[in-house]
Amino acid sequence: MRTFEDFTEGLEIPLEPYTADRDEMIAFAREFDPQPFHLDDAAGGANELVGSLTASGWHTCSMLMKMMAEGFLLDSTSQGSPGVDFVKWRAPVRPGDRLTGTARVLSRRLSAKRPTLGIAKIGVSLENQEGVTVLESEYTLLVLTREGAR
Amino acid sequence: MRTFEDFTEGLEIPLEPYTADRDEMIAFAREFDPQPFHLDDAAGGANELVGSLTASGWHTCSMLMKMMAEGFLLDSTSQGSPGVDFVKWRAPVRPGDRLTGTARVLSRRLSAKRPTLGIAKIGVSLENQEGVTVLESEYTLLVLTREGAR
Repeated sequence: MRTFEDFTEGLEIPLEPYTADRDEMIAFAREFDPQPFHLDDAAGGANELVGSLTASGWHTCSMLMKMMAEGFLLDSTSQGSPGVDFVKWRAPVRPGDRLTGTARVLSRRLSAKRPTLGIAKIGVSLENQEGVTVLESEYTLLVLTREGAR
Repeated sequence: MRTFEDFTEGLEIPLEPYTADRDEMIAFAREFDPQPFHLDDAAGGANELVGSLTASGWHTCSMLMKMMAEGFLLDSTSQGSPGVDFVKWRAPVRPGDRLTGTARVLSRRLSAKRPTLGIAKIGVSLENQEGVTVLESEYTLLVLTREGAR
């Protein structure tokens, strides 16, 4: 299991691939983001900025989360996150897109208050099957040290 | 229907309230963020940082999206968003929490490339039923002008 000690600066971790499923996209949009261009091909096509049905940006973030969970977080001492520095939705995610990505450890330090807790800055990017970057983000990961996980 | 012209700087818009449902929290976590503290009361309780089952942060963002959609976006010329400047998950969201919130127009301008498209910076915050702020975020909203919506 990866602990703080393993998240060395510069480490690159491949994420688990994820395919954006049309029915899942529409179900997510119905539940959380029922804007027409996330629900319906015709409305998506009529939106000049996207030109087709596209995934809610929050759905793409949720796909990213699953890709990170399966790529490394579930086999780590992750304690969650206090927040995200930014998310850039660079390009639309369309039905059938196969997303791949990488997480990078940008920096890390120990908590001053709790020395068994590490604080790592993680950069992630997701690409589609054509090599187009669809999402970029940086966020803070809280992760226990080996000592803290005992 | 609200267009760019209606999103005046300083405008405050109440969001539609949302109650965090336990089953929905666990279903979301199973699908997208299966870290133990999002799935299970015992594991949530064992996490010193949260102390109970808590919603995935991306689930809270998705709840925010629904609250904004119903609060104002579905009755607007929203064209989606290119990204988020930050998200701060200030406090855990627990089963049964009733979230309320406000969106504020922080600034706005017209696109230089496309003068019928407006670009607004929106600040949002969500509170629980005890008045504790659970989420803060700022993001960019793209919204058509009256002319652009014709």
